Amino acid sequence: MKYFITGGAGFIGSNMTDRLLSEPENEVVVYDNLVTGRMEFLEEALKNDRFTLIKGDTQDLPALTRAMKGCEFVFHFAANADVRMGCEHPRKDLEQNTIATYNVLEAMRANGIKRIGFSSTGSVYGEAEVIPTPENAPFPIQTSLYGASKLACEGLIAAYAEGFGFTAYIFRFVSILGERYTHGHVFDFIKKLNNDPTKLHVLGNGKQRKSYLYVKDCMEAILTVVRNTNEKVNIYNLGTDEYCEVNDSIGWITGKLGLTPTMEYEGGERGWIGDNPFIYLDTKKVRSLGWKPKYSISEGVVKTVEYLQANPWVFDRED
Amino acid sequence: MKYFITGGAGFIGSNMTDRLLSEPENEVVVYDNLVTGRMEFLEEALKNDRFTLIKGDTQDLPALTRAMKGCEFVFHFAANADVRMGCEHPRKDLEQNTIATYNVLEAMRANGIKRIGFSSTGSVYGEAEVIPTPENAPFPIQTSLYGASKLACEGLIAAYAEGFGFTAYIFRFVSILGERYTHGHVFDFIKKLNNDPTKLHVLGNGKQRKSYLYVKDCMEAILTVVRNTNEKVNIYNLGTDEYCEVNDSIGWITGKLGLTPTMEYEGGERGWIGDNPFIYLDTKKVRSLGWKPKYSISEGVVKTVEYLQANPWVFDRED
Repeated sequence: MKYFITGGAGFIGSNMTDRLLSEPENEVVVYDNLVTGRMEFLEEALKNDRFTLIKGDTQDLPALTRAMKGCEFVFHFAANADVRMGCEHPRKDLEQNTIATYNVLEAMRANGIKRIGFSSTGSVYGEAEVIPTPENAPFPIQTSLYGASKLACEGLIAAYAEGFGFTAYIFRFVSILGERYTHGHVFDFIKKLNNDPTKLHVLGNGKQRKSYLYVKDCMEAILTVVRNTNEKVNIYNLGTDEYCEVNDSIGWITGKLGLTPTMEYEGGERGWIGDNPFIYLDTKKVRSLGWKPKYSISEGVVKTVEYLQANPWVFDRED
Repeated sequence: MKYFITGGAGFIGSNMTDRLLSEPENEVVVYDNLVTGRMEFLEEALKNDRFTLIKGDTQDLPALTRAMKGCEFVFHFAANADVRMGCEHPRKDLEQNTIATYNVLEAMRANGIKRIGFSSTGSVYGEAEVIPTPENAPFPIQTSLYGASKLACEGLIAAYAEGFGFTAYIFRFVSILGERYTHGHVFDFIKKLNNDPTKLHVLGNGKQRKSYLYVKDCMEAILTVVRNTNEKVNIYNLGTDEYCEVNDSIGWITGKLGLTPTMEYEGGERGWIGDNPFIYLDTKKVRSLGWKPKYSISEGVVKTVEYLQANPWVFDRED
């Protein structure tokens, strides 16, 4: 199968690239503007003759359409992933998420490609009333521009499935951790501790509960769904059935690093406007397909710390 | 109160304009590109010195921002309302609904205006599993580009409410009928019968069930919500607690016109791709505020026929 991966030089995209290339029958075309994606993440892939890298932007519909030619399945992972800055740059989510997804769908239509996998987010549930939150939770009210833009993408994709005969795989992620992870709590904490190992400043009260999934478990979950379901629109929560407090992950990080920083907390229950105090997804649906995570949250955090210690260059750039 | 109404020269917008101007304390600024809106609908308003018409497009953010200056409440009714053509022009819904709504929100933010009323649609429920469908129905899967774009707008508006302290009123309409109605089943049927009173061609099998609301009842419902609720995000279904089949409305129309055309049906259960066979909303929430419709569906249809007979010029233009 010839796969096209937008954002294929990013955290999720490059992990999927390597995972797909590990199967000899697959070819992968990565389309990435290399703004947050990094060539280093494609180091292995670039040695493979079943791999092609095309530098391009999802805002450029003609280039995107040309690049997609001959592919059979699109993983659309390119996105503005800077969840916290939504209120400072509201146009970013609109352009890089909503309009970009429209462009991907139009490029697919022009190329006669009808299967798409999409990285959505548990943020679409807003402040969920039902926890753990199932895919068919009560119609949510959006609380962040990021979640709203991902929901807009989901809606577009589902409407294309209905209107143009696409098959859609929509994944609502919790936070993902692991190799090549370059934004979010764990990254920020380690970055701060690298600068000053004696203290750690935390947005929020540290009691925010989070459910992280290890990236390689996430890749297996995605492929399990794509290879075992065939509805017009297949929507799956991806996460683990455990959660931790931000303070727990700080404990695992500092433990692994051998540090005992002074803690400073800022803000109340929420670290930033639009942050959800708790995203914890019901994953019965994906588990019913036989998938389950191999790694616990604490193992995922420790693997992430190990990766970031071994690859200090990922901190060189502001993502 | 000084109101700003996008799409104020359209069906819903001009009815709201007249309704607000009927109260001596209100001023109204209408912003409309006059593509589907019509000057004729503002005939009365234009005589009123509390009324201002600004010709402009919601795609033009600088002009929109200038026009909004000094207003206190925004009704955002401008939209691509051509539900059926979604698959022929997918970009229209993206631009005229999603991006336009983003522009309205940004113009409000630039002007320090924090209250918005928005015309969404029952189509956001997709193929509802629960009928009548309440506002907190299970998280729906979108089935039309129109519904998907309106859901994208809802998400943006709710995220602005959370992020920027807006108060949002989101109305999920069933089909609206009445004076100045210029698209949809009843309009199409009368247009066809004007051309050839001996036969009537119907998209679908005529058994599609529809729940129409009379436009003046709709205006009262909107004002009841806006004046009696104050949550951050107020989402209300607007409709009647009855429904009819398309064939019923054909009976009322032909009865009123004194015609007995031969019927021709085309297509099956759905008139067009993405059409919902049945949109019937649970309106307990708005009724709990004391509102109820004054007119039945059949009365609304008959009033519409009377209006269209008295104003044949509305058929002059392809909307």
